[in-house]
Amino acid sequence: MVFFSENLALFLSFCRSVGKQTNRHMKKRHLLLVFLGLMTLPAAIAQNAQVKRVDPTNWWVGMKNPNLQLLIYGPNAGTLTYTINYPGVKLVKVNTVENPNYAFLDVTIAPTTKPGTFQIVGKKGAQTLTRPYELKARTSTPKGQGLTAADFIYLIMPDRFANGDPSNDKFPDMLDTQADTKNPYLRHGGDFKGIVDHLDYLKDMGVTALWLTPVILNDETLKKEGPDRNQAGYHGYHFTDHYQIDKRFGGNAGYSGLADALHKRGMKLVQDAVYNHVSDDHWFFKDKPTPDWFNNWPTYTGSTHKEQPLYDPYGAEADRKTLLDGWFTPFLPDLNQRNPYVANYLIQHAIWSTEMFTLDGWRIDTYKYNDLTFLNRCNQALMNEYPNILLFGESVVNNPVGQAFFVKNTIGGFDFKSNQPSALDFALYNATNDALNQNYDWDTGVNRLHQVLAQDVVYADPMKLVTFLENHDSDRYFSVIGEDINKYKLGVAFLLTTRGIPHWYYGTEILMKGTKNPTDAEVRKDFPGGFPGDRENKFEAAGRNDRENDAFQYVRKLATYRRSNPVLQTGKLMQFLPQNGVYTYFRYNNDKTVMVIMNTDKKEATIDGARFAERTKGFSSARNVVTDETVSDLKTMKVPGQTAWVLELRK
Amino acid sequence: MVFFSENLALFLSFCRSVGKQTNRHMKKRHLLLVFLGLMTLPAAIAQNAQVKRVDPTNWWVGMKNPNLQLLIYGPNAGTLTYTINYPGVKLVKVNTVENPNYAFLDVTIAPTTKPGTFQIVGKKGAQTLTRPYELKARTSTPKGQGLTAADFIYLIMPDRFANGDPSNDKFPDMLDTQADTKNPYLRHGGDFKGIVDHLDYLKDMGVTALWLTPVILNDETLKKEGPDRNQAGYHGYHFTDHYQIDKRFGGNAGYSGLADALHKRGMKLVQDAVYNHVSDDHWFFKDKPTPDWFNNWPTYTGSTHKEQPLYDPYGAEADRKTLLDGWFTPFLPDLNQRNPYVANYLIQHAIWSTEMFTLDGWRIDTYKYNDLTFLNRCNQALMNEYPNILLFGESVVNNPVGQAFFVKNTIGGFDFKSNQPSALDFALYNATNDALNQNYDWDTGVNRLHQVLAQDVVYADPMKLVTFLENHDSDRYFSVIGEDINKYKLGVAFLLTTRGIPHWYYGTEILMKGTKNPTDAEVRKDFPGGFPGDRENKFEAAGRNDRENDAFQYVRKLATYRRSNPVLQTGKLMQFLPQNGVYTYFRYNNDKTVMVIMNTDKKEATIDGARFAERTKGFSSARNVVTDETVSDLKTMKVPGQTAWVLELRK
Repeated sequence: MVFFSENLALFLSFCRSVGKQTNRHMKKRHLLLVFLGLMTLPAAIAQNAQVKRVDPTNWWVGMKNPNLQLLIYGPNAGTLTYTINYPGVKLVKVNTVENPNYAFLDVTIAPTTKPGTFQIVGKKGAQTLTRPYELKARTSTPKGQGLTAADFIYLIMPDRFANGDPSNDKFPDMLDTQADTKNPYLRHGGDFKGIVDHLDYLKDMGVTALWLTPVILNDETLKKEGPDRNQAGYHGYHFTDHYQIDKRFGGNAGYSGLADALHKRGMKLVQDAVYNHVSDDHWFFKDKPTPDWFNNWPTYTGSTHKEQPLYDPYGAEADRKTLLDGWFTPFLPDLNQRNPYVANYLIQHAIWSTEMFTLDGWRIDTYKYNDLTFLNRCNQALMNEYPNILLFGESVVNNPVGQAFFVKNTIGGFDFKSNQPSALDFALYNATNDALNQNYDWDTGVNRLHQVLAQDVVYADPMKLVTFLENHDSDRYFSVIGEDINKYKLGVAFLLTTRGIPHWYYGTEILMKGTKNPTDAEVRKDFPGGFPGDRENKFEAAGRNDRENDAFQYVRKLATYRRSNPVLQTGKLMQFLPQNGVYTYFRYNNDKTVMVIMNTDKKEATIDGARFAERTKGFSSARNVVTDETVSDLKTMKVPGQTAWVLELRK
Repeated sequence: MVFFSENLALFLSFCRSVGKQTNRHMKKRHLLLVFLGLMTLPAAIAQNAQVKRVDPTNWWVGMKNPNLQLLIYGPNAGTLTYTINYPGVKLVKVNTVENPNYAFLDVTIAPTTKPGTFQIVGKKGAQTLTRPYELKARTSTPKGQGLTAADFIYLIMPDRFANGDPSNDKFPDMLDTQADTKNPYLRHGGDFKGIVDHLDYLKDMGVTALWLTPVILNDETLKKEGPDRNQAGYHGYHFTDHYQIDKRFGGNAGYSGLADALHKRGMKLVQDAVYNHVSDDHWFFKDKPTPDWFNNWPTYTGSTHKEQPLYDPYGAEADRKTLLDGWFTPFLPDLNQRNPYVANYLIQHAIWSTEMFTLDGWRIDTYKYNDLTFLNRCNQALMNEYPNILLFGESVVNNPVGQAFFVKNTIGGFDFKSNQPSALDFALYNATNDALNQNYDWDTGVNRLHQVLAQDVVYADPMKLVTFLENHDSDRYFSVIGEDINKYKLGVAFLLTTRGIPHWYYGTEILMKGTKNPTDAEVRKDFPGGFPGDRENKFEAAGRNDRENDAFQYVRKLATYRRSNPVLQTGKLMQFLPQNGVYTYFRYNNDKTVMVIMNTDKKEATIDGARFAERTKGFSSARNVVTDETVSDLKTMKVPGQTAWVLELRK
């Protein structure tokens, strides 16, 4: 009788929940599925309950937010009666959901609570379960230090950078047991050890921070992603357990070691968040806590990938829903962040990761596909705990208005106000491609840089935008510019001298190339020298050819100049209208003025300095930062074709 | 002695004025010129003074603004002592300037002042001059009625539309005495009478308002504007006397007659303002009131024509100055609207014209080249007198942020806030070209319409923007789309059903074509049937071939439907993401819903109506507005390739 009444209550509760959903087809289908599911419950509940996991796996005392929601998971874990007995810790509420294998414990932790381990006690009839839960003391290591325009971020796909520990390349107890550097769709064995081994290389190059594509466990079966291609999430974007760092990279301990190695060098660590979806091999997809844990569709519905309906005053609700709730791919179930347990789970994981791994910032994947209210809540929770933390989302857009929607902005017309402090600057990325690849004309070529920067009026703080020449989802920069070393230097000079926080993609300093033809694996090749058996080692000058060394030294020169010169970090920007393919701008503060002349034309340009008097006043000569040559006359300058001059002005 | 002390005072006053200027070269040059000029003054002042003109040429009692500034011009008019004796009229101040031939009389007109004529009395020693000045009663004819999205504006270049009065084609007392329809660069003889003769044609087509390229006197010598081309301002943009309507169009009386003929038909009149410049044959360029009446440069300096520095947070002052103060062409001296007399002159002329000719709105030429403070002041003065008046400037821009800067907008990042209620929508014009001419892809083709409209969040009132397919400065629409009648209809359907106030360019309804090769005269050809001796008369169905009649009837059908259906005027807009080249949107209000399906693909499209449920709910069928056919099933619709369906939904 108990079982039946429990079942009835569960069923009625579920009916109420489903009743809120709008899609009639979905409702009918779910009711049927759940009714059939419930019919099997009596047998399940007759078994003893178990607690297999508690997420977050630990917490800390002394957090600003005293609230914590523990997800308890195990067979019939939702049928237990829970108690916690620890000074300062109060179990406020036990929430149960449709699936009896889950309980959500709302706990508060008073500011005076001491670090230590308490027991979560679950009882049911004669059965008593205990599960220890640790409240750690917060370490003195800074967390959430944030990144600024003083930083230069290096983006690494850990599987493809360097294999420092061949013993962790593959494991027989994982769903995909393979590793093979010859197969672009399998794991290659890169790991944290490989990264730590090359931190001095990166620091020497001028890098101050790393952003790794996700390091969280992707324990997946291979999925058929193309006619001749089975692959799992070697790139890391297919989470299967939020609370495990993938052991093929080195696991939680290895990740902490990387963080320590970075901080010891004064460098920073950015983690890649994926709030939008998980792998269909994620443990909680296989046993869903609630029917609405994921965004359900009667038949598979992919996202439109188009963000305009979110801010369009004429946008249709149907288009907004398909963008947000449509699935990224058939293998990536879309999390329903309107479910408060889902939202709490994701937010707490972000805070847990920041605290546990002493992260300095987050890059947020597929930002525009997430519930907007959730995003603001999640951002705010992170900023409350870590006021300096940098959050920069990936919203692939094609214009500044669309980009502004996803960050703090000045546009009063938006119905929704984002609180995101930064974002990946796709508008400027597109303009950089145009600047280097289009012919110069009225609105094209290098004019695009000028025009897009002029629209910075729409952002609350454009200096915080993260700028780039490429990433792991784009064709590689060197290929995009037709492997033209002159164009290469023009783009690098722009990236490292304009406003914003520049990020770099691994290997472009040694001219790695590749387009997404046939697949994006082509732009994620192994860094030569990072893997056992590599014939070349391009981490060292001796392993690079002349052109590669020239490219490396060019990046290094400007990155190290930027790192040591606040004028390129916090200095003001002034830009002049491009003329004849020549774009001239200045970074300046009270101490220093840097003049950049980007001649994108093939011919030498004669620059009449008089036009720039408002910035060159008081200066008579300049030092070319790249070549160390002196420019003795600012009145008339002859800049060779396809060349950027970065000039430190002198009195 | 009197003469010498007067000269000294003038010279010192001038020195102070010039001292405010920043350009040192200019200052020196002007001081020299004026000093030489002043040396000749004693002889001039010895002569009797004359008053040759007073601008405005009349004024009205009962205007909201009681202030009026009269420009008095004539030899030594600035050396007279003025008095006015008329009840309610007070001469507050007489301002003199560097040039003794000018005086500026600040007058106030009390609300109780009666209409009538007063005498402006000027005295100097024994000499007394009197000049009558009329204060008219305001007529009851509405002025400044404004235009809304209920209107359909037809743009005419009066010289090229229809010649109703061959007796006014040319005059021996004008600087250019010629007229020749065979020479694209000379006058052709079109006039107001020709327009009035075809108002019924226009009304029948669905037109509700006319915008004429400027009608103000362009009494110019021919200028060498190209290697084989001498031309004067046949297009009207080269003003030589603000207070005369060109007599080759019919003069002031003919213009009033046109306004009356329009208003009698319930149609409206828009005048084309040019605040930025005048012809170098303008009378006040030949005898400049002050050295700073125009923007002076040491050597000829053309405008950059690029607006970004105005709003760019990183913009350079030098670039702003060259945009604003640079000359549009060497023959078009650039007015300095920071000179308060210049500003008053232009503002009063705008009000005078509105009142005199019962104008309903203004199109403002070269908007982005004008002093921003002046523009706001001028707009506000017009809106104060005529609260409903529509002002829409021409700012050629390439994106919504740039366009928003020049109208009332929602962008908090702009340092300057424009008060302009409307503007020509160049952002949407560019998108329309792309929609019809680009291949459909992720961000291209008809996606451009969707994307640009989605950015309407930046405007305070996008429904007031003036939309168009072309104008007198662009290649003709029919040529741009490769003379493809299917594309033609797609664009027309969009123009006449989307948001905004549509404007049309004369002749496109009969498929006139032309590109700006070799010159823009090619897009300003005579309307066939408008000129004596024309072999064809395309104002009449019988004179048009089948394709021309098809085009005309298509425009007429949609324009008249729009005119009689508020849903296309004030109805809300909802747009859906384009798919496979098909763009679907709705206009809707409480009474009616119109669904537009633009299939830009060459193949027939099968439309799944379920996607549009939020707008089609409650409707079961539709009437095709163009063909009158019934669409009986909204669930699945097959729309032929390159076709727009405009459907009025039915319950």
